[in-house]
Amino acid sequence: MKKIDVAKKALALHKKLGGKIRIVPAAPIRNRADLSLVYTPGVAAVSSYVAKNPKEARAYTMKGRSVAVISDGSAVLGLGNIGALGALPVMEGKCAIFKTFADVDAVPLVLDTQDTEKIIEAVLAVAPAFGGINLEDIAAPKCFEIERRVSEALDIPVMHDDQHGTAIVVLAGMINALKVVGKKLDTARFVILGAGAAGTATAKLLHVAGAKNIIVLDSKGIVNRGRPEAHKRLLATYNTKGVTGGLREALKGADVLLGVSGPNLVKADDIRLMAKKAIVFAMANPTPEIMPDEAKRGGAMVVGTGRSDYPNQINNSLAFPGVFRGALDHRVTKITDAMKLKAARAIAALVARPTADRVIPDMFDKRAPLAVAKAIR
Amino acid sequence: MKKIDVAKKALALHKKLGGKIRIVPAAPIRNRADLSLVYTPGVAAVSSYVAKNPKEARAYTMKGRSVAVISDGSAVLGLGNIGALGALPVMEGKCAIFKTFADVDAVPLVLDTQDTEKIIEAVLAVAPAFGGINLEDIAAPKCFEIERRVSEALDIPVMHDDQHGTAIVVLAGMINALKVVGKKLDTARFVILGAGAAGTATAKLLHVAGAKNIIVLDSKGIVNRGRPEAHKRLLATYNTKGVTGGLREALKGADVLLGVSGPNLVKADDIRLMAKKAIVFAMANPTPEIMPDEAKRGGAMVVGTGRSDYPNQINNSLAFPGVFRGALDHRVTKITDAMKLKAARAIAALVARPTADRVIPDMFDKRAPLAVAKAIR
Repeated sequence: MKKIDVAKKALALHKKLGGKIRIVPAAPIRNRADLSLVYTPGVAAVSSYVAKNPKEARAYTMKGRSVAVISDGSAVLGLGNIGALGALPVMEGKCAIFKTFADVDAVPLVLDTQDTEKIIEAVLAVAPAFGGINLEDIAAPKCFEIERRVSEALDIPVMHDDQHGTAIVVLAGMINALKVVGKKLDTARFVILGAGAAGTATAKLLHVAGAKNIIVLDSKGIVNRGRPEAHKRLLATYNTKGVTGGLREALKGADVLLGVSGPNLVKADDIRLMAKKAIVFAMANPTPEIMPDEAKRGGAMVVGTGRSDYPNQINNSLAFPGVFRGALDHRVTKITDAMKLKAARAIAALVARPTADRVIPDMFDKRAPLAVAKAIR
Repeated sequence: MKKIDVAKKALALHKKLGGKIRIVPAAPIRNRADLSLVYTPGVAAVSSYVAKNPKEARAYTMKGRSVAVISDGSAVLGLGNIGALGALPVMEGKCAIFKTFADVDAVPLVLDTQDTEKIIEAVLAVAPAFGGINLEDIAAPKCFEIERRVSEALDIPVMHDDQHGTAIVVLAGMINALKVVGKKLDTARFVILGAGAAGTATAKLLHVAGAKNIIVLDSKGIVNRGRPEAHKRLLATYNTKGVTGGLREALKGADVLLGVSGPNLVKADDIRLMAKKAIVFAMANPTPEIMPDEAKRGGAMVVGTGRSDYPNQINNSLAFPGVFRGALDHRVTKITDAMKLKAARAIAALVARPTADRVIPDMFDKRAPLAVAKAIR
């Protein structure tokens, strides 16, 4: 479908549906007998029991199967800060995916505040009903502090998906892409264009996985240790050769380019600066940093995007449903780096024989959420 | 069923279900084409449109069909302050009722705070996704301030159901009960046992409906104008004859006793003090202030309770699903007294020929939510 067709069809579908999720009873209420168990008087026994045995809440209430998908609308898709209502269609879509792919009952919540402290308070306030918190589309750098503090305060897993969902799926694709081009994670030179939520978490996870040379760029060029933002100063420590300058300086001799920034920022000429058998994941959505054809014209051997109409779709949906399915199943309280590595390897392993056009499983590969869920324990 | 059987069966059902609601996609996600409309890239057009046209959010998102059911767990059923997790089974049950009776998609939220200011902040923070807020099981007197301030701050209807749902259904039953005994609202003498959320709202709505003599009691006796709580001082103004003392002084010559307090507080001997053809609604749940048999032994002519195993079940479920159905359908921003009166009269009118054993429709009367929804506009 053409872009304009997709937009028109999406608008028509949303108007027809009036919201993309429905909240339905788990068991029918047909008569007084049903009602007396689901509601008063029977529910009093359940409420008393759960109040006295809070750990049993997971067995007797929605807490054992539910996740809150929470956004403040400050960094929605590639649209930027469009606020709570603008974010709502995305959160609803995510909840529909949670149910479809991993039987997780997910509730969309969009917050009428973009203040770090108020976001933290709101998330902590609504947490009791949920077995996990999926933070979504919250701008960097506040997303880092919000995730850290909420996670520390709660005994349920908290994950900012723009960070870690992206990082897991990129690493999964990278494991296979490196096989295809015959290179190694620890000796390959990485360039990440974008130092926001996705770029930061991807750099960190690649580092944990063993990558030793990662150059990260933001709109001002290669980030260095003099930057005002703490997370950028950390990212600068991964630039072990101390490269300075802009995109062209970074790309010179690089093996991998990961785009998590914006549309059309990279040209075929830039790709020509990279090492032979280069890997390019250009993941800005819906328009990548460089279109696949142009990246190949520049000499890239493996190319991935966030799009479904090109090979190698690097999409969070491969990770987040399984991450929370696993967290709920195994009563995980934190999503650790070790779990993320295992999840990435599990996704990668689903592609038996990686090729340049197939480094990552299809989004509808039903094995993916199961494999990821197994890794989260 | 016996009480112990209901409790056992309710516990078993809740454990089997693992939560009483499910969150499902409104349309299936079967393939990439579906996903490209429900999620990226198509959703971007919807998000942009809604962000630019916030009033259209009701048409394109869940906001047009959803209600948040929010509690802090400070006054759950007759169980008291059992906290957020204890409240969750009740809120889930309520959401199941919302969908079953009125096709409203309701989200249970239980708050990890009982502080008035923090409750208000949390409710305001999560409001954007919802077309209405049903506050539930929040203790008096803070429930009054929370409802007032949240309602003032939002452009969606906010209703504390323990107050107004109860008041609407009591008034509905009272309209018919007074017909049965041949008395009038404006000349009848009312006694309300309980000055919490339900008692206060019921007294206020009866007053608005035309009742001129209402004595309200709390655990310290008849409330008077010297009480420290503002809402009790207001209630004292309805005691137009200036009666003082306790329950027996209040009941002397009274036409109506409404119990919204606790189990077994009233005896047949107390009822004998009332006027002839007395009306008794003893609504403490699950054990009423006085059992129907005993109330009749004391001379009451019309007796109602909150229970499903006796005639005249005075139950909020007759009102709240229709109230929010109507509010969503008619884009109502406040639930006014005039709407509550109309709703009560609409429920009462569903009983064509009221008798002592039938002053209120059956909870499963499908006309009730429709009639109430029509009144809320």
